[in-house]
Amino acid sequence: MVDHLLGIEGLSKNEIHRYLESAQSFVEVSERDIKKVPTLRGKTIVNIFFEPSTRTLASFDIAGKRLSADTINVSAGASSVKKGETLLDTVRTLESMNPDVLVIRHSESGAPHFVAQHLSRASVVNAGDGAHEHPTQALLDLLTLRQHFAESGRDIEGIKIGFVGDVRHSRVARSNIWGHLALGNRVRLIGPTTLVPRDLATVFRSDRVEVAHSLQEGLDGLDVVVCLRMQLERQDEHFIPNLDEYSKEYCVSERVLARCCPQSVVLHPGPMNRGTEVTGDVADGPRSLIRRQVNNGVAVRMAVLYLLARTAEPHEVFEP
Amino acid sequence: MVDHLLGIEGLSKNEIHRYLESAQSFVEVSERDIKKVPTLRGKTIVNIFFEPSTRTLASFDIAGKRLSADTINVSAGASSVKKGETLLDTVRTLESMNPDVLVIRHSESGAPHFVAQHLSRASVVNAGDGAHEHPTQALLDLLTLRQHFAESGRDIEGIKIGFVGDVRHSRVARSNIWGHLALGNRVRLIGPTTLVPRDLATVFRSDRVEVAHSLQEGLDGLDVVVCLRMQLERQDEHFIPNLDEYSKEYCVSERVLARCCPQSVVLHPGPMNRGTEVTGDVADGPRSLIRRQVNNGVAVRMAVLYLLARTAEPHEVFEP
Amino acid sequence: MVDHLLGIEGLSKNEIHRYLESAQSFVEVSERDIKKVPTLRGKTIVNIFFEPSTRTLASFDIAGKRLSADTINVSAGASSVKKGETLLDTVRTLESMNPDVLVIRHSESGAPHFVAQHLSRASVVNAGDGAHEHPTQALLDLLTLRQHFAESGRDIEGIKIGFVGDVRHSRVARSNIWGHLALGNRVRLIGPTTLVPRDLATVFRSDRVEVAHSLQEGLDGLDVVVCLRMQLERQDEHFIPNLDEYSKEYCVSERVLARCCPQSVVLHPGPMNRGTEVTGDVADGPRSLIRRQVNNGVAVRMAVLYLLARTAEPHEVFEP
Repeated sequence: MVDHLLGIEGLSKNEIHRYLESAQSFVEVSERDIKKVPTLRGKTIVNIFFEPSTRTLASFDIAGKRLSADTINVSAGASSVKKGETLLDTVRTLESMNPDVLVIRHSESGAPHFVAQHLSRASVVNAGDGAHEHPTQALLDLLTLRQHFAESGRDIEGIKIGFVGDVRHSRVARSNIWGHLALGNRVRLIGPTTLVPRDLATVFRSDRVEVAHSLQEGLDGLDVVVCLRMQLERQDEHFIPNLDEYSKEYCVSERVLARCCPQSVVLHPGPMNRGTEVTGDVADGPRSLIRRQVNNGVAVRMAVLYLLARTAEPHEVFEP
Repeated sequence: MVDHLLGIEGLSKNEIHRYLESAQSFVEVSERDIKKVPTLRGKTIVNIFFEPSTRTLASFDIAGKRLSADTINVSAGASSVKKGETLLDTVRTLESMNPDVLVIRHSESGAPHFVAQHLSRASVVNAGDGAHEHPTQALLDLLTLRQHFAESGRDIEGIKIGFVGDVRHSRVARSNIWGHLALGNRVRLIGPTTLVPRDLATVFRSDRVEVAHSLQEGLDGLDVVVCLRMQLERQDEHFIPNLDEYSKEYCVSERVLARCCPQSVVLHPGPMNRGTEVTGDVADGPRSLIRRQVNNGVAVRMAVLYLLARTAEPHEVFEP
Repeated sequence: MVDHLLGIEGLSKNEIHRYLESAQSFVEVSERDIKKVPTLRGKTIVNIFFEPSTRTLASFDIAGKRLSADTINVSAGASSVKKGETLLDTVRTLESMNPDVLVIRHSESGAPHFVAQHLSRASVVNAGDGAHEHPTQALLDLLTLRQHFAESGRDIEGIKIGFVGDVRHSRVARSNIWGHLALGNRVRLIGPTTLVPRDLATVFRSDRVEVAHSLQEGLDGLDVVVCLRMQLERQDEHFIPNLDEYSKEYCVSERVLARCCPQSVVLHPGPMNRGTEVTGDVADGPRSLIRRQVNNGVAVRMAVLYLLARTAEPHEVFEP
């Protein structure tokens, strides 16, 4: 029986904290002179990315190497994987090489789950599937908030968090929302109706998710504001009139934050379009945790790889 | 004097068995918790692929890493290697970096031989050259059969094997055929005259190779059936009328196997077009050794890299 | 305070010799059976190439691995880095992963300097920026000459060197020229006025640089001739009438060398267009140091990575 990390949906509060605690212990490894532990020596990690990625791929690659695993990066052109069958054949071939973990990014929602169902020996990590989930990004966002609130003597549980922008198409938002709901937090989805349809909240089957179409109303009283990346092609798809119009109404600025939620901190999953989703003064100012987010990326991926790929002790069970 | 693995043609029976025995001993390494041996620590393996490849490249890369070698993957666009001179310059530059092994795939038949003739210090492994040879694929097919026949108390020497489909363009078939001839086996080439011309058998200079244009006649009495991948573009090149017509006559099904060679086992070098070259019930059924083939890929490549790159003992000679 | 290698301009004679001496000591490592030292174990080197490269990337990758560092190769499409801001975001994200060295190639002159100004913890190595500098290529050319002159009992300081061809667009020439000026050498720039404008010499603010538009006059009395690669697209840009015309006047042949500078040795940074910049008899003849240049590439890059990434002893200072 192998474990996978396919999404945050369905993880318990304890499982989430387990990932975060493990990640916290790995933060320090990357700050040493010798940034390497022998934990996963002789393990094989295959990163197979069906969508181009620089940041996430590099992060997983470094995480694996710092654990002393062998890492293999396979970039698979979309052309060779048009059919589910072919995806499966590709992945089965890779499984036959006895990897311990397959890290997969795919433009189709559910691709990692499909793969996991058909493999028997390798753990699967979802590195982003369509508009569905991006669990390691959510975990690093959660770790960032956990560190921040711990430092000010507060708890990450019980906070109010808002997601501003293209929630509809954002796997980052989706994974984060599941995580905050598991932790008992309240969530607000903020944006125009094209990007935040009224019934989007119902997806999460919780009365702790609400929708707001005005930025000011949405930000009111929040502890945390997450600015989502606006895909520039959304203009052509007519989800927004144009970027100028969009940013006039929804760009998160210091002025609106100071008025609506003066104590809030701000996250952005990157890469940022400064002036579109968030102003430069916020992104680079004291309430920004953005730099810290990226700093946590390698530690979170080390934790995930470690928890899935280490050789389990016989008496060990997954749920503590 | 360095050794190369440029093809199966010309290898003696003993040399083939030597690769297979070494590969068999590496199978177990990839099934350990710690899938790594220190054998090639400090050796450098350069994989230079002038044709795109996911499976074979990943297999060589993992094989090198499990032997503790440093592996470098160079993907060379066809544009930069239009002329033989440029191929040579590229490879000479790479040789100047003191690799122990150059693993090369190239769309031109003979490219690895050309390279080997001009290098003095690095071993060259042919990972597929045009329609010429693909020796490590043949070795893994041979290893798979050797394991299978050993388990049923038989010998891989003395069997009858048939290759169905596009033999004309298949480097996999070509390497396999040379291997089976060296082992003393009988070989049948099966397919329409466009893909299996009557005089194709003469290439192999052996009266143990014969040609059959009907599937039923070709399969008669075989111990092993190898289904070859049909390149879909062969339709446009008018080698076959169309895929439907082709598969009606040559797709290997359980029904025809049960009638013509009920004891036979089936191989396919992958990736499969189910329903074109082979039916799903055969591919996934009890006579299929296909999964086992891919499982042997890393072990065979470890053996090849090991035998070529290890530091030879002074008293060691290649031929036992 | 971290060190960078952004260019040869501004390096002192001592600093250059320090790189060369370190490189000389690494030459031997790549000739061992076990081509690996543990020096940079646990260090992370990120090679981020915004221009395609096979040779230089492979050279840095091998250099890092032979020092036991973890190396990550990021190929960044030009599309994702149109604006300086985005370049900075990309590089900041990579810095957040705590690399010890960022090796960067970019089509824009000054990109590595821009990056270095904005990073606080990682060392930056310029692997070629536009038409500006390519310092590791210059260091390996200098090492090659230092070895050559040492063997004939001479000194690399005080020689006369000429660069033939497209000096205007050559970052290799530029870095070399700064190096030779630091060593006190005399430099001649040789080519048609379109590729060697009369005022090009003034860039180097030294009366030891002169310009010649005729090959014969330019070669007169030189100790070293560097043939520069002619980019074939220069024809379309009308810098030269056509390649035939160009090579008739400027191709460096044994005949002209024997007449003008019979004792000279010849370098070429590669890849060569034989018959355009240099004739085959020169390239493969006794005065060619070309093969030796490429042989020095890995050692020079090992030295650069080592001097920048090793953990400095507390009492150590950069200038000896």
